Amino acid sequence: MFVTFLSDFGLQDDFVGTCHGVIKRIAPETQIIDITHGIEPQAVLQGALVLANTLPYMPEGIHVAVVDPGVGGDRRALVLRDGAGRLHVGPDNGLLVPAAEKLGGIEGAWQVTNTAYMLEPVSATFHGRDVFAPAAAHLSIGLEPGELGPAVDPSSLVRLALPEPEVGAAAIRATVLYVDRFGNVQLNLSRRAVESAGIVPGRRLELDLGFERYYATAARAFSDARAGDIILYEDSYENIAVAITGGNAAEMFSLRPGQQLTIHAT
Amino acid sequence: MFVTFLSDFGLQDDFVGTCHGVIKRIAPETQIIDITHGIEPQAVLQGALVLANTLPYMPEGIHVAVVDPGVGGDRRALVLRDGAGRLHVGPDNGLLVPAAEKLGGIEGAWQVTNTAYMLEPVSATFHGRDVFAPAAAHLSIGLEPGELGPAVDPSSLVRLALPEPEVGAAAIRATVLYVDRFGNVQLNLSRRAVESAGIVPGRRLELDLGFERYYATAARAFSDARAGDIILYEDSYENIAVAITGGNAAEMFSLRPGQQLTIHAT
Amino acid sequence: MFVTFLSDFGLQDDFVGTCHGVIKRIAPETQIIDITHGIEPQAVLQGALVLANTLPYMPEGIHVAVVDPGVGGDRRALVLRDGAGRLHVGPDNGLLVPAAEKLGGIEGAWQVTNTAYMLEPVSATFHGRDVFAPAAAHLSIGLEPGELGPAVDPSSLVRLALPEPEVGAAAIRATVLYVDRFGNVQLNLSRRAVESAGIVPGRRLELDLGFERYYATAARAFSDARAGDIILYEDSYENIAVAITGGNAAEMFSLRPGQQLTIHAT
Repeated sequence: MFVTFLSDFGLQDDFVGTCHGVIKRIAPETQIIDITHGIEPQAVLQGALVLANTLPYMPEGIHVAVVDPGVGGDRRALVLRDGAGRLHVGPDNGLLVPAAEKLGGIEGAWQVTNTAYMLEPVSATFHGRDVFAPAAAHLSIGLEPGELGPAVDPSSLVRLALPEPEVGAAAIRATVLYVDRFGNVQLNLSRRAVESAGIVPGRRLELDLGFERYYATAARAFSDARAGDIILYEDSYENIAVAITGGNAAEMFSLRPGQQLTIHAT
Repeated sequence: MFVTFLSDFGLQDDFVGTCHGVIKRIAPETQIIDITHGIEPQAVLQGALVLANTLPYMPEGIHVAVVDPGVGGDRRALVLRDGAGRLHVGPDNGLLVPAAEKLGGIEGAWQVTNTAYMLEPVSATFHGRDVFAPAAAHLSIGLEPGELGPAVDPSSLVRLALPEPEVGAAAIRATVLYVDRFGNVQLNLSRRAVESAGIVPGRRLELDLGFERYYATAARAFSDARAGDIILYEDSYENIAVAITGGNAAEMFSLRPGQQLTIHAT
Repeated sequence: MFVTFLSDFGLQDDFVGTCHGVIKRIAPETQIIDITHGIEPQAVLQGALVLANTLPYMPEGIHVAVVDPGVGGDRRALVLRDGAGRLHVGPDNGLLVPAAEKLGGIEGAWQVTNTAYMLEPVSATFHGRDVFAPAAAHLSIGLEPGELGPAVDPSSLVRLALPEPEVGAAAIRATVLYVDRFGNVQLNLSRRAVESAGIVPGRRLELDLGFERYYATAARAFSDARAGDIILYEDSYENIAVAITGGNAAEMFSLRPGQQLTIHAT
């Protein structure tokens, strides 16, 4: 059985390793796949988007995610079952919902309350170790979600508000969702949205960053552009993104999640 | 069987991966758990503290740790057996001792000298690969520690000096031990120490950093404080730490391991 | 069976985790060893050197490497078989060749073209996920390389030009190949090259960095020098490197891959 694991814990500290230890003490044969632990600290929306992008590439199993600014407060700990029969474990702050909805929708939800499946005393600050990792480990060896706590109404789950783009005839106002290590800048745009603004591969563009404008091109791939070209392209998760061929767009334009820019078809 | 692995190797280079390869060539079925490789380069005390914090959460097995400024010199390579029957592998510089003492004390110690269980020629700079990983791998498949080299007197082991806090009636002078990715600042204080200075949850405090003073609060959890509040709290490993709710205390106060601060109960 | 995996993906994003998921969906029992994912973005030469350094320490299996600035263009995807019977998977940009040549030479080469073993639709930017990881997974469960596509002539493979040192009677002009987390600076020098310039352990040296000169010593190990000494030594992969005992040479001298320096025996 597989447990996948995504968090904002980073790899500098022992947080991830400690959760692995907790899982392996309970379920020595369970295999753990680390999706990433590089989510920006407490960036729930980014965590939710990366989870929804990546879970379709993961083997079926138990999918734990921990980006949890509300740890130690009264936010609930959850297990969700999606339409594909996968189980999702994490905090009730919207983190789990987009992935579960992409995988067939939320078919069941439970609140984790049974202390028999927690590490006690449960700390106020590290529920990854004390609540979520043990729950995932027990589920991976056959525990029924209902043993972890009472069913809750899926309509009661916290959901995230995704920023919506403003799409005009030849211009789109978009928001940065994610920046990767190569400096590629993922926007809140689908291919349909850019096409509805008349933007197709080969089209000349201007990127308006508020303080300055840059020429860009709609491209199919890095290899379609010359080094140094600014391109708008569909990335490998079918999100529209901005890149500089052979360069770092996020650094060049100082772009971070939450910032806005306008794309003009010229 | 499990091998856990902690080091200051970082993940930028191949050091960790190469040690994994060495272990798997010797013991293909052994499972490796990476506790962390983010210990500051050559920070033996930090490594020792993280090891002592985390080993109780790890499955029993062989516990390798490598933070080793003396590599290539005459410091000894060790295997320790603790009171719980676990085996610890690493350099004789104090790194292994606090964890072994926490797990029942040091019941046996051996110096690793048998070149039959090393990768030869042993390099002068990478005993993780050439000495410690092979020793751990062989132990994980049943080798007796005594096969690796002669027993040594536990009282001869190098031990670390932990900085002691100065606890007064309404003030404590503390030293920073560790800073995590969230900027939370672990101090050399236990709950008993802060309580003996009259500091309990809810108490108003001042943090004196030498150049400036800040108001703070003794709190139970992040969720007990408002965003931006400076709090003193017991972290998930039962160490007293300083944090800013929703912020980065280490960055704000420029705190790094070894620095001192004074906490006044007001 | 083992798959080893090296890339420039970093661990901040999900790229590595997603490739793990893809491999495990196809080959749940295959063990994955991450050599490193910290190769500088698009630094093919560095990736090739680290791969050649480390594969001899890895169990035999399928060895995937992805440093791939030409992704989405017309560079070929390859499988190589080396003289030791290992299989190497990655782009045809020189990345795989030095390791394969070190392990007995290239005995067979195939271009990966069979879409039955790819994730479709194959993205233009993430062949690690869509081409290389699936190919490695299928090979790890017994697929013959010839099933992935047609054999190609090994002499047609792209090869990297390694910078050559200029060795004089008492001076060597060298190029920086790699900088590790400790700031140790690997040069394009073998022990034979430095010995031919009369440099042996104990010899006094001067490092000429163009703008400034520093005294240094040829040493056997860090422990042979005092803290703060600049040393030239043979590292654990038998490359000649520059270090500062207890310090960070790359930072102190602002050295990065590709830069040159001259070593004078004084």
